[in-house]
Amino acid sequence: MLDYPLLEALAAVHRRGSFDLAAAVLNLTPSAVSQRIKALEERTGTLLIRRGQPCAATETGLRLIRHLEEVTLLEQALAQDLPGPPAGPATVRLAVNADSLATWVIPALAATEGMLFDLVIDDQDHSQDWLRRGEVAAAITGHPGPLQGCDTVPLGALRYHATASPGFVARWLPEGATPAALAQAPALTFSDKDRLQGDWLLALTGRRFAYPTHRLASSTGFVDAALAGLGWGMNPEPLVASHIAAGRLVEIAPDTPLDVPLYWQYARLTAAALAPLTRAIRQAAAQTLR
Amino acid sequence: MLDYPLLEALAAVHRRGSFDLAAAVLNLTPSAVSQRIKALEERTGTLLIRRGQPCAATETGLRLIRHLEEVTLLEQALAQDLPGPPAGPATVRLAVNADSLATWVIPALAATEGMLFDLVIDDQDHSQDWLRRGEVAAAITGHPGPLQGCDTVPLGALRYHATASPGFVARWLPEGATPAALAQAPALTFSDKDRLQGDWLLALTGRRFAYPTHRLASSTGFVDAALAGLGWGMNPEPLVASHIAAGRLVEIAPDTPLDVPLYWQYARLTAAALAPLTRAIRQAAAQTLR
Repeated sequence: MLDYPLLEALAAVHRRGSFDLAAAVLNLTPSAVSQRIKALEERTGTLLIRRGQPCAATETGLRLIRHLEEVTLLEQALAQDLPGPPAGPATVRLAVNADSLATWVIPALAATEGMLFDLVIDDQDHSQDWLRRGEVAAAITGHPGPLQGCDTVPLGALRYHATASPGFVARWLPEGATPAALAQAPALTFSDKDRLQGDWLLALTGRRFAYPTHRLASSTGFVDAALAGLGWGMNPEPLVASHIAAGRLVEIAPDTPLDVPLYWQYARLTAAALAPLTRAIRQAAAQTLR
Repeated sequence: MLDYPLLEALAAVHRRGSFDLAAAVLNLTPSAVSQRIKALEERTGTLLIRRGQPCAATETGLRLIRHLEEVTLLEQALAQDLPGPPAGPATVRLAVNADSLATWVIPALAATEGMLFDLVIDDQDHSQDWLRRGEVAAAITGHPGPLQGCDTVPLGALRYHATASPGFVARWLPEGATPAALAQAPALTFSDKDRLQGDWLLALTGRRFAYPTHRLASSTGFVDAALAGLGWGMNPEPLVASHIAAGRLVEIAPDTPLDVPLYWQYARLTAAALAPLTRAIRQAAAQTLR
């Protein structure tokens, strides 16, 4: 059998990025963590952690961490079937896109008993990468799959509206959302991975062009910035419907929503352990997504 | 004189982390970006970008990028004093802690004309590092300074309350916030850098101990998770005051707030160009912070 405390040290160093942070999580000294990693590297005969800032697992290290996660989830499922006092909650690592987190995911997490959640927040075009690398047990992603060893559940689409404040529209788009005006009006961009504004402009105008933009990696920050007149951006309908109804925000081009389909993907091996979460995710998605 | 288009390519590769993303920002081909970096490295006789995932500037590279930012801000200040059509807006990179962004910063940004903002979101204990490395022009930080070449303006303190839903308290803390109960009740932790929960527990109980926790790097996600009964966490007063007043959230230990003092730090060389932003930041902080 593998020496699981060593694997736990490996996973902690990779996830937290340093021996010091891993030691704090594990209630060990950094030197004890270092000894565990070295022992595991000697036994496997290969480098498992690339020392750096941050420290990161090698490919072999990632494979070992994925194995640890699978075993943890299997143990969790086992504990529910065994007599005796319940085991402590398992920590489940999930990749979630920020707009899902801000709109519909949290009730699903709260409805799932006996799990602690460690959320990795990434763009819906990139959250699947975390699952492919084996760093999360499941992901909410824009990719329909298939991914080797994983199952995919379609969740519906999150609808976005290109929105800004009435004052912003009066100042920057007095003659409507023309390419010339949009090339001057400041936009909002979540991060380098965020292509929603560019995709919407392409759908609206039939071409891509440069536009000035703020960068602000926060879903509610996007809405706040639109309300304050800082810029226009693609905002998820659940966050802006009441603002649009009250006239605090307007669509900069009427009736031109953008629908982003989302999927729940999870490692097949852990499907049983994740089943209550999968049920809760489907239910919550059905209430908010189209 | 330095060749500034080369410096712009250097800054873009460092900030965006890859030649491809830099090329998209600059409207160039990746090969043109690569040629510019190589030309600059030949002229300076030193490596400026560490190729990797992500690509990052070397120390000399960072020094050149800081210089470019200073020149950009100086040009912006100059343009306001010159006749003729106004120059395009300058992009100002700022490090901001997530809770400030979620509570009081955006109105200050919206009140400042003629700037595009590129926000780096980091913990208040770490946002100053970005300024020290010269990667941002200013930072909202928990450090009172002083920092070489920078000025510091005290902004007041953001007040936090340890909050949870009434249902969570009834289930996990029926006899109050005792160490034994808090060692079992799931907490919320923003990231590895987030020490607020641990600091508050230390202040409340006089010692540090392990507690189960979810990880969720979103200010409004924290509040949503507390409302949904997922965990307890330190939430900023402006985000939870109305929930507490309405009984949707309660303090898990009454009248035990935690005040986190915040400061505005900026490079002295660019103080004049940043003056309108500094004014707006002070005004917005005065309305929300203590």
